[in-house]
Amino acid sequence: MQKFINTNDLIEMEKQERVHLINSLGGFKSVCLVGTKNKANQTNLAIFSSIIHIGANPALIGIIFRPAAYERHTLDNILETKFYTVNHINEDIYMQAHQTSARYDKVLSEFDATGLNTEYKNDFFAPFVKESHIQLGLNFKQKIDLEINNTVLVIGEIIQIYFPENCQNADGFLDLEIAQTITCSGLDSYHKTKKINRLSYAKTDKVLTTI
Amino acid sequence: MQKFINTNDLIEMEKQERVHLINSLGGFKSVCLVGTKNKANQTNLAIFSSIIHIGANPALIGIIFRPAAYERHTLDNILETKFYTVNHINEDIYMQAHQTSARYDKVLSEFDATGLNTEYKNDFFAPFVKESHIQLGLNFKQKIDLEINNTVLVIGEIIQIYFPENCQNADGFLDLEIAQTITCSGLDSYHKTKKINRLSYAKTDKVLTTI
Repeated sequence: MQKFINTNDLIEMEKQERVHLINSLGGFKSVCLVGTKNKANQTNLAIFSSIIHIGANPALIGIIFRPAAYERHTLDNILETKFYTVNHINEDIYMQAHQTSARYDKVLSEFDATGLNTEYKNDFFAPFVKESHIQLGLNFKQKIDLEINNTVLVIGEIIQIYFPENCQNADGFLDLEIAQTITCSGLDSYHKTKKINRLSYAKTDKVLTTI
Repeated sequence: MQKFINTNDLIEMEKQERVHLINSLGGFKSVCLVGTKNKANQTNLAIFSSIIHIGANPALIGIIFRPAAYERHTLDNILETKFYTVNHINEDIYMQAHQTSARYDKVLSEFDATGLNTEYKNDFFAPFVKESHIQLGLNFKQKIDLEINNTVLVIGEIIQIYFPENCQNADGFLDLEIAQTITCSGLDSYHKTKKINRLSYAKTDKVLTTI
């Protein structure tokens, strides 16, 4: 049976039920750990699932941050230092990754709290997550306040990329399953994937083929 | 072996290789079909993988549209009529979904070209995809021009929701695997998922448990 929910139903819905439902509706999501450090060398690590590809040239990624009513250590550090890392999550570290969402005091690093390790390389300011298989170093570019609900879109340029050599296909594509990257749904559900197919570039007069 | 790529490598990289690489870096993505209709009743259907949860109250979803240099029938229809649908993709329709990305002439509907069927219900203006198991009806709220690369962020409010009753948990969460929703990576790779775990709300002084 198909269930139908409209705006009035959403308004009347218990808050947590609405949060779980609406967070499920966007489908499977990218889930990553964002690593930062403030000028006093205090590190921070936080899990985000609101990550979006914005463009390939320049290489841009966007992240949505929640309203200013909450403490946002990651955002503060990005604005203060301009550099941050985005680290893919694999099955070995998903519980530690989820645990970073607990409200640790600002002076306690989530690296220390969860046992994940910092990694510094190629003079990049912010800490990578050593246990992550695909690691990106980003340079802050733009902050856009979304007044509609007081969230913030932060756009950064990817300036360093690390990935396992054996996961790259000849055409540039990364096989994220070889890199063991996982995905999430809703607020708290983690999933492995199984490839169905890679499809050829769609044309109006050609049948799709497997790449 | 770990591969390292920096900004200079990206600049020197062949265009298609860079496009495939950068589109892979965001991780697994939500992939949906966006259904629209113009005022002359011409329908349009297009696949998008740059979809992002913006908030739960009001229920907001964002979609990134590519630069204005390209024809953007979906965006034109949304701005003209204010209503559009977001439809999850399942394994039965992923090839037809991918085929909507071919450059069909504006007067040809991708519904007709791919054999996917329109569905109209509860007085919603835009067409849902009948074969989709999770269908959302959205009301356009805001268009934000991202001047950094001439893309556009469109924010809409979810005002109608349809999903299979048996995929909802008691706490509101939708089990997208029961709904057969799939995910994608890069530009052209489609994947099923297998749940690893749902984790309890993280607290600083509690061990995570399975929900």
